[in-house]
Amino acid sequence: MNARLPDSVAALTPRDLPRLTQARVPLTRAIEVRNEFGDTHTISIPAERDLTVYVDKRELVTLMTLGGHPEWLVLGYLLNQRLVASAEEIDSITVDWDVGAASVKTRHGIDRIEERTAKRVVTTGCGQGSVFGALMDDVDKIQLPEGAVLRQSELYGVVETIRQMQSTYKAAGSVHGCALFRGAELLSFVEDVGRHNAVDSIAGWMALQDPVDMVGADKVFYTTGRLTSEMVIKAAQMGVPVVVSRSGITQMGLEVAQRVGLCAIGRATNKRFLCFTHPQRLLMDAVPPRLA
Amino acid sequence: MNARLPDSVAALTPRDLPRLTQARVPLTRAIEVRNEFGDTHTISIPAERDLTVYVDKRELVTLMTLGGHPEWLVLGYLLNQRLVASAEEIDSITVDWDVGAASVKTRHGIDRIEERTAKRVVTTGCGQGSVFGALMDDVDKIQLPEGAVLRQSELYGVVETIRQMQSTYKAAGSVHGCALFRGAELLSFVEDVGRHNAVDSIAGWMALQDPVDMVGADKVFYTTGRLTSEMVIKAAQMGVPVVVSRSGITQMGLEVAQRVGLCAIGRATNKRFLCFTHPQRLLMDAVPPRLA
Repeated sequence: MNARLPDSVAALTPRDLPRLTQARVPLTRAIEVRNEFGDTHTISIPAERDLTVYVDKRELVTLMTLGGHPEWLVLGYLLNQRLVASAEEIDSITVDWDVGAASVKTRHGIDRIEERTAKRVVTTGCGQGSVFGALMDDVDKIQLPEGAVLRQSELYGVVETIRQMQSTYKAAGSVHGCALFRGAELLSFVEDVGRHNAVDSIAGWMALQDPVDMVGADKVFYTTGRLTSEMVIKAAQMGVPVVVSRSGITQMGLEVAQRVGLCAIGRATNKRFLCFTHPQRLLMDAVPPRLA
Repeated sequence: MNARLPDSVAALTPRDLPRLTQARVPLTRAIEVRNEFGDTHTISIPAERDLTVYVDKRELVTLMTLGGHPEWLVLGYLLNQRLVASAEEIDSITVDWDVGAASVKTRHGIDRIEERTAKRVVTTGCGQGSVFGALMDDVDKIQLPEGAVLRQSELYGVVETIRQMQSTYKAAGSVHGCALFRGAELLSFVEDVGRHNAVDSIAGWMALQDPVDMVGADKVFYTTGRLTSEMVIKAAQMGVPVVVSRSGITQMGLEVAQRVGLCAIGRATNKRFLCFTHPQRLLMDAVPPRLA
């Protein structure tokens, strides 16, 4: 069973979780715009803030974020960049929006951090554009649970839940959303200006839960964004065998999904979808009537 | 006049342009998918390739790209990262898809390259997610030409030209497009899996043109992607005073546009749009009739 646990969760116990601030900032701002008639009116746009992450007082990275869940984001970022293996390696994450800083205190430091953050890969990702070399190398170590499946009826539940969600996207547009489901049950939903910040935040949230609840095998990862290589890799790292997107897939996203045994489903709106990889994970229990 | 030239062009003369390969690869791939009825059929998806950039034999970065214009992409990346100030600093860019490598030979090396690539900012950008510290610091130095304006009729021409474009997006989806216009005249159009690769490729193409033709003042930059801080900064760096997007804008994108005097127009489809900043640059010469 442990083999099914993503690294970010395997080492985690309910004890010794990091102390997190709960920094909050407005996620939207009202601005005045002029339309094609020359009329001015007011709309909302999403916030975009720079958050500089310091690990044990050393500057690591500046993330551009909506700011909804900065502590989850920073934790998930460190996990997905493979800089820490579990939340327990972190003593505290202190976010201070007045100075745009997230101060991470580790329990035992991060080994060889310069070296491990040296190799730069600029990816297709929105919002989490820089992954370090180790991430790509990890792919071949990942094997997702054989038996894990999703029912088409559950897939429809996922899409419908997302459709009904009150969101910054509905209020202001221009953000991506990610969500984690157990079957059709929503566990966590995060939006950010970049979909990679959103998926990192989900990973951070996940790492704070009871690891027994967080076995990836029965989870579904939803993203509004495209299924690029990095998105698929991150879902696989979380041990999630099924990924659902409103958008499409790129060639490398497809190849990674095929390699790790991940069922990638895209163009999912209303009753429609395309299953790109591993259709055996999708139980067709709710085939819609064909319109003559 | 020179004050209006973006740095990437100012130093450029028609002489001594870099020697570029013209590496070509398929931009789409046909795959078999299964739909909601369980039917299998074939669709096209965009390619996504890793291209590792070596500068004078030193590995700099790995870009994930569609692969349409790798030489323009690499040149534009170096320019937008402020690692080179003009195309003339480059002797040659040699792209070899068999090994996924772009080998850049500079004429005189890049000064303090380690130092200048050290500061990492992970941005909202799709595809070109990692900008180095210098980029953000540059913003306040940018001042866009006072008088530069776009006519609403030209804006409609831009949107219509994009709408009619034969594109990888139409064939396979999941890519972003960027284009450079002079008024309503299309000068260059590039698509990539990430919009930041696309804008970098446009910057690379721009740097190869006659600098006199490439004064930014009469140009319009179009992107299908959101107007995040980095997209606005890059347009401003190219000296382009008007940016048009099919999508929306983020708070930091808005603030940067306000600061540098850039007219940011979003939600541009058919006859509709929203002007977010500096509406005085938009001449309302084609106000559509109001539907009663």
